[in-house]
Amino acid sequence: MRAEDVWGERWTSCANPLAHRYMETAARKGSLVCLAADMRSVAELVDLVEEVGPHIAALKTHVDMVDDFSLEAWSGLVDAAQRHDLLLFEDRKFADIGKVSQHQMAGVHDVRSWADIVTAHRISGPDIVDGIAAGWADVERIGGVLLLAQMSSSGNLLDADYTAETIATGRGSPHVIGYIGNGSSATEVAALRQQVGAGQMIWTPGVNLAVGAGAMGQRYGHPRDAVLAGSDAIIVGSGIHGVENRAEAAAQYAEASFAALVERGG
Amino acid sequence: MRAEDVWGERWTSCANPLAHRYMETAARKGSLVCLAADMRSVAELVDLVEEVGPHIAALKTHVDMVDDFSLEAWSGLVDAAQRHDLLLFEDRKFADIGKVSQHQMAGVHDVRSWADIVTAHRISGPDIVDGIAAGWADVERIGGVLLLAQMSSSGNLLDADYTAETIATGRGSPHVIGYIGNGSSATEVAALRQQVGAGQMIWTPGVNLAVGAGAMGQRYGHPRDAVLAGSDAIIVGSGIHGVENRAEAAAQYAEASFAALVERGG
Repeated sequence: MRAEDVWGERWTSCANPLAHRYMETAARKGSLVCLAADMRSVAELVDLVEEVGPHIAALKTHVDMVDDFSLEAWSGLVDAAQRHDLLLFEDRKFADIGKVSQHQMAGVHDVRSWADIVTAHRISGPDIVDGIAAGWADVERIGGVLLLAQMSSSGNLLDADYTAETIATGRGSPHVIGYIGNGSSATEVAALRQQVGAGQMIWTPGVNLAVGAGAMGQRYGHPRDAVLAGSDAIIVGSGIHGVENRAEAAAQYAEASFAALVERGG
Repeated sequence: MRAEDVWGERWTSCANPLAHRYMETAARKGSLVCLAADMRSVAELVDLVEEVGPHIAALKTHVDMVDDFSLEAWSGLVDAAQRHDLLLFEDRKFADIGKVSQHQMAGVHDVRSWADIVTAHRISGPDIVDGIAAGWADVERIGGVLLLAQMSSSGNLLDADYTAETIATGRGSPHVIGYIGNGSSATEVAALRQQVGAGQMIWTPGVNLAVGAGAMGQRYGHPRDAVLAGSDAIIVGSGIHGVENRAEAAAQYAEASFAALVERGG
């Protein structure tokens, strides 16, 4: 399907080129799946991408927990992601002031040189967004920031006021493509969508096709419910990489999420 | 001076061995200075430590912005810090859930293997503290966490409720040695000390001997005022590494901070 048809108002309301790139990728592949790959070796990450790449739209990494990282090895993962038409999303959760964050985009991980999307907390101040954008600008790239507006973790401090401040910062920024929402609660996702409006994306972890399957206090919501409530990308980890047939699981998440988008009608 | 004499109630009230180690170091060197070294090359960091090492008690790094980092090169910095009797403090501002933070203590930077102290935000949940401690435990080391209770950055979201929740988390944890407070405001430091009590430390950035010298909207407080208000370590960056004679500046900060501690009487 054409991106503008399947995404409807979200396509016309989102001005950000990175957001459009994601929506095109998702439409082309029939998947709203962002795979959360918390692997600690590059080879495991590459294996996973080769296996499930056709069924996902983005790959979420924690490069800072990869024990055998080198820029050379990592370029193998970047190549695999490009071959599979995936956006690369480093879930760094930047949380310092803008100037520091700009430089943290460099260093040996050089996130600015390969990540299309990163996460940031609003906690330290609104200038973090410009700091991250300056990091990308330093290597003549652009990328998109997802601000954490909600979390599902127990005892988190992102209350209603915090969420509102986060959206106020994100709405005014050309660098913010959207927000992380709490996919374990369709009610919370719907409330967030109400506040955000149509012009920015919401990406949601905390979803699983086997609702209630959470271990260690983790709650899950169903991907369909999250998408119908306003989520534009479902972030799935163990639901895909923790099962026997990872490609089959990824295909199931792709189908469920994309069907829900079509049902939502953009 | 003996640590127990100069630190008084703080010494007897703090049970954490890392906190004691810092207090002993500070007493031995006559300095409450933690040098904020935001350098982007290892050689620059080593040069700085060799120059000002005798006058400081701890070194605060951002290893993730060091462009030529390797564990081999970094071990040169660790050696220099040990020769100069310094605690190593990685200002990582961890801000993910506990399990992720545990693994982020590893990776190529392997913060767990060399850092004595790290910072963390309370935003994602209280389990971040145990996650970080588990990271140290994985390599059979112990370290101390400083939770961000206040910031001086413009537009930060650490309001009174957030600070209270942070202290509630930190008070119950054997891994939390103290809090980051806002050194630019003696009033805020005093309020934080009131809430924290005598049993944990407060470390404060935002201080400068030339009060009012802040560039780009940065406000500064005087080191003496911060320490008298309850700060146990002053975090100084450009006030030391941004001047002509860095050793002389470090010595001045050491003298001012330690004299204030003696004046405070523990």
